[in-house]
Amino acid sequence: MTRTRVAIVGASGYAGEELLRILLRHPAAELTAVTSRQYAGQTAGAVFPRYRECRLPFINPDPEQIAALAEVAFLALPHGLAAEFAAPLLARGVKVIDISADFRLRDTEVYARYYKTPHPAPDLLRRAVYGLPERYADAIRTADLIACPGCYPTSIILPAAALLGAKLVETTGIEAISLSGVSGAGRKVELPYLFPECNESVRPYAVTGHRHLPEIEQELAAAAGADAVVINFIPHLIPVNRGIHSTILLQARPGTNAGTAVDCLRAAYDGKPFVRILDPGELADTKHVTMTNMCEIGCAFDARTGRLIVSSAIDNLTKGASGQAVQCLNLNQGLPEDTGLN
Amino acid sequence: MTRTRVAIVGASGYAGEELLRILLRHPAAELTAVTSRQYAGQTAGAVFPRYRECRLPFINPDPEQIAALAEVAFLALPHGLAAEFAAPLLARGVKVIDISADFRLRDTEVYARYYKTPHPAPDLLRRAVYGLPERYADAIRTADLIACPGCYPTSIILPAAALLGAKLVETTGIEAISLSGVSGAGRKVELPYLFPECNESVRPYAVTGHRHLPEIEQELAAAAGADAVVINFIPHLIPVNRGIHSTILLQARPGTNAGTAVDCLRAAYDGKPFVRILDPGELADTKHVTMTNMCEIGCAFDARTGRLIVSSAIDNLTKGASGQAVQCLNLNQGLPEDTGLN
Amino acid sequence: MTRTRVAIVGASGYAGEELLRILLRHPAAELTAVTSRQYAGQTAGAVFPRYRECRLPFINPDPEQIAALAEVAFLALPHGLAAEFAAPLLARGVKVIDISADFRLRDTEVYARYYKTPHPAPDLLRRAVYGLPERYADAIRTADLIACPGCYPTSIILPAAALLGAKLVETTGIEAISLSGVSGAGRKVELPYLFPECNESVRPYAVTGHRHLPEIEQELAAAAGADAVVINFIPHLIPVNRGIHSTILLQARPGTNAGTAVDCLRAAYDGKPFVRILDPGELADTKHVTMTNMCEIGCAFDARTGRLIVSSAIDNLTKGASGQAVQCLNLNQGLPEDTGLN
Amino acid sequence: MTRTRVAIVGASGYAGEELLRILLRHPAAELTAVTSRQYAGQTAGAVFPRYRECRLPFINPDPEQIAALAEVAFLALPHGLAAEFAAPLLARGVKVIDISADFRLRDTEVYARYYKTPHPAPDLLRRAVYGLPERYADAIRTADLIACPGCYPTSIILPAAALLGAKLVETTGIEAISLSGVSGAGRKVELPYLFPECNESVRPYAVTGHRHLPEIEQELAAAAGADAVVINFIPHLIPVNRGIHSTILLQARPGTNAGTAVDCLRAAYDGKPFVRILDPGELADTKHVTMTNMCEIGCAFDARTGRLIVSSAIDNLTKGASGQAVQCLNLNQGLPEDTGLN
Repeated sequence: MTRTRVAIVGASGYAGEELLRILLRHPAAELTAVTSRQYAGQTAGAVFPRYRECRLPFINPDPEQIAALAEVAFLALPHGLAAEFAAPLLARGVKVIDISADFRLRDTEVYARYYKTPHPAPDLLRRAVYGLPERYADAIRTADLIACPGCYPTSIILPAAALLGAKLVETTGIEAISLSGVSGAGRKVELPYLFPECNESVRPYAVTGHRHLPEIEQELAAAAGADAVVINFIPHLIPVNRGIHSTILLQARPGTNAGTAVDCLRAAYDGKPFVRILDPGELADTKHVTMTNMCEIGCAFDARTGRLIVSSAIDNLTKGASGQAVQCLNLNQGLPEDTGLN
Repeated sequence: MTRTRVAIVGASGYAGEELLRILLRHPAAELTAVTSRQYAGQTAGAVFPRYRECRLPFINPDPEQIAALAEVAFLALPHGLAAEFAAPLLARGVKVIDISADFRLRDTEVYARYYKTPHPAPDLLRRAVYGLPERYADAIRTADLIACPGCYPTSIILPAAALLGAKLVETTGIEAISLSGVSGAGRKVELPYLFPECNESVRPYAVTGHRHLPEIEQELAAAAGADAVVINFIPHLIPVNRGIHSTILLQARPGTNAGTAVDCLRAAYDGKPFVRILDPGELADTKHVTMTNMCEIGCAFDARTGRLIVSSAIDNLTKGASGQAVQCLNLNQGLPEDTGLN
Repeated sequence: MTRTRVAIVGASGYAGEELLRILLRHPAAELTAVTSRQYAGQTAGAVFPRYRECRLPFINPDPEQIAALAEVAFLALPHGLAAEFAAPLLARGVKVIDISADFRLRDTEVYARYYKTPHPAPDLLRRAVYGLPERYADAIRTADLIACPGCYPTSIILPAAALLGAKLVETTGIEAISLSGVSGAGRKVELPYLFPECNESVRPYAVTGHRHLPEIEQELAAAAGADAVVINFIPHLIPVNRGIHSTILLQARPGTNAGTAVDCLRAAYDGKPFVRILDPGELADTKHVTMTNMCEIGCAFDARTGRLIVSSAIDNLTKGASGQAVQCLNLNQGLPEDTGLN
Repeated sequence: MTRTRVAIVGASGYAGEELLRILLRHPAAELTAVTSRQYAGQTAGAVFPRYRECRLPFINPDPEQIAALAEVAFLALPHGLAAEFAAPLLARGVKVIDISADFRLRDTEVYARYYKTPHPAPDLLRRAVYGLPERYADAIRTADLIACPGCYPTSIILPAAALLGAKLVETTGIEAISLSGVSGAGRKVELPYLFPECNESVRPYAVTGHRHLPEIEQELAAAAGADAVVINFIPHLIPVNRGIHSTILLQARPGTNAGTAVDCLRAAYDGKPFVRILDPGELADTKHVTMTNMCEIGCAFDARTGRLIVSSAIDNLTKGASGQAVQCLNLNQGLPEDTGLN
């Protein structure tokens, strides 16, 4: 069997490290290049001592060179920069699986509003497929530009889109309260992410305009067949390394309860290896999914208020970023969806 | 100056330990007795090594003996048991400051529904005052039975009651999502509270009928002047020792926004030493209040959904339990409210 | 390829859970039975929700039934009990890989002194092989009773035995200071292991007679070719889930320094997949090895005192227990040593 | 009573914040100035939101202005810079309590070797008193330049100096293995101190030439009446916010055991409010001392090796820095040693 040659462009952050972890043991992918301006010349093993045995050297990110080395490139770059690299790579026949935010939003005006900059490559947007395999598997199989979802959106869209699609809940009154481990902030060397600033602390942030908000709304509207869905999204930072938990409050339609919600989700994700639907009344725990590509979902129902309470947990770096990107690679390469992910 | 002689009944848990911490250095209170069946005969210092210099011995909880030793008794007992001790203590002229749930709910049927047992002392309920000093100071000053609020309710009622009272928000559509440190579960030796079960984990629990729910609804209804207020209350367990953060979503009435909400809260709690209202848009962080009796509150407003987003943080053992109990003692004894609490 | 049928006897603790994690994806082993008196009747997935998809039911531990189902049994039982199960299993032709302490010590008197009970199966001791693959691979290949090392001993013996064997250090003046994550205490529901008792805390314990002490001394004496080696072993508990770090102080012989020590260790463990020797002056970090079967070792030298300072890190549940047990299984079954362990 | 006017020079780090915490409630000190180039113009409450009610503005550090505002200045500056400020402050009659390393070492050559720079103010060294109140109280009472000990040294010198002074242990073969919370690294915005780099990790560092080493050796030699004492000092970083634990191994002289060591320490520190000697065999736990100025010390003895094992715990920011500095202030101002520290 020939293995797909893959590159990680911008491999110096936590998502890059997680790609390294997965790809180094992936049976059908061969990691041929890792790029980082900051670490060019050093080996991946020197920069990420967990993988010290990996002697692959970081190189400067050059599309020509990447195209010579790889058939597929994962982009783990800041937004804006990702789009700059996508174009020359695609032009050279390299498929792009982008972990940044650049190709997630269909509407460039929304992009401009939330990212405070014009969209860097509007022409490419049409080619981009939203890389949520449980919902867009067919498109992912044939795409050459895949925009992997954000970590928070993955945890929220998976349950909420299915429930909206089945008309079990209203399209209004949706609220998602999410809690993220600190690795979700990236490997950013800034005061708020120092250990003593995060440990023994919990705090919400960006509660009215987080950049993941429009992405969630776009996908929920698509699932509901609605022009628009407007939600509240309230992220919090908690002192764990990995893991996102989202509690999603939705207004139940008549007849909906925990049992029908669970049935709906089980039907929607039947046979999907990375979605786990708990029994009615059971709730998700990030501890059950860290270091895996699993999304665990539970449902409860408050008859007094009519609210369906959905609890969802993922590992922000795996299912929320790099694991999902590899799941997309697998689909795109005609491999079993869970290759290298168990 | 003569100091008030006080006892801690049921001092072997975390709330008891926190009372010990505060009372050992309180300038106007003298701790004369600590009780615990489990530890009778041992000194408080042996059981709580932080206070090893404290040679006060644990005694068995006997109302007669407590009455001989103390003018005021803090009850840090399980619900049900607290009510059993309150009656004989009150009969002997000992004032009771109860940290349990026994005297918080005005309605014995609600108590029976949530605590799965008939109320153990309905006759005493009428004498009980809800021990939230920022809202019931006058009643606390003259009470002989004070029912201290639960930890979650304190963090939610303080902001929400003021906003409801000022008619800035609707009485419907209220949702409180709370995150608690593990000490909130008490010093219970049970599997879910082992370190490896809690660390690197976050999970919601009791999302539809937590025992603190009716207490919150009772106080919000009182504040709103409504017959009833029905809310969703969603607690989560997070891996910190101390601290509760509540994110409260309320439906803004016309004209309400973060600025008017902050103004309202500042007016409501003007001069209160243990309520800190942040500037509009700023959010609370438990790190700022742990080991203090402070409640920190911030407000944001989402104009798209009309939701007022309130962020509130306390230390669950201090303002959420023992510190608030001492604040009640201070008021009740005619002392400055913050005596021994800074 | 036929897979080896294996059972986990006493699978309800953390070492059992870690065996589950590894064996469920082991390509050459088929997990056919898990036993637990406490959980009999429940599925492994229900007891360990990370592996919820595993429908294998817990059964009561019965040697007859285990022998019908498995060729190899992992014993993850308390000491004493393990020996009771080993005999009937061996009698029925089931190979035994024991994670308990029952067959680690060659000297039954030492066992009796440290475990406060006579050795439960002295006759079997002669058949037992010490399951440290990097040092006893040949014996492990042909053994039918393998006694896996303790977690602390693994982290200490790997570096110290090689240095002693090469005569780079003295056999006296050895001191091992170890730091363990809380999962090392097992899934014991006891007060000292509650989250609030462990978090934000560090404490040494059992500093003069820990049960792992004689095991370390036995193996260091064997490596040194000495009648006896007497050391200080000082374990501490730190607030992490997984990981052991040992700092080992040894008296350098003339000519020994960090460079020669590193050379010696690299020669000793050349080709071994689970030993990583850092460059001179570099030190180990548990973060680099958690969730892996790796032992990472670094050396520094203090010329002022002549002390060689060795830093060693493992995951206490993987290389310190269950991963090492599977490594033994692999050797014993003629498989590549790292099968299912990457 | 007039209160002593005090300033904190360089108040923007964790030691500065801890000084703020203590001084804001100190009954006999009035905080009149806080300086920070970085934060000049902002209030202390804005920079440290725990103390948000504090409206004192940060000013640029100007000796003239500080002298106008304060009688005593705490220097919480990097080494090198502290000495630069000490001279002009002393010249203006301001007493200096320095938390940096500049005046701890008597020997300027040792300073130059460990700090890689010539001593910035050798003339002032003679005036400096080592600010360890349990050992130098008389000198501290009359000093105008007090050099507060480092955090690690405090935890090691307190027990070891007393045991050496009483000749219970040898002056050779001393080893101190210390574990520090991350706040000990200061509020340095560097990659190794990010939450995900520290959490679930433990690692030694600077094991052969840490800057606190010569300070420990200087004080142990003084206590032993020896020309020099040479030790191994092995610091580790562990994932807690606050707390240092030191395990100190000393060679017992004939007749020494845990009981005689405890007796010696109790005699040495009789009446000292901030030293707690545990019973023989009991060991220290950082959890018992965090947020206090206490040093907790326990002793065990290994008769097999003749090693006395001393366990010592402090809060690195309180007794290890700012609390101890205030303890020095108290002595120097003729106040009870524990004023404002309970």
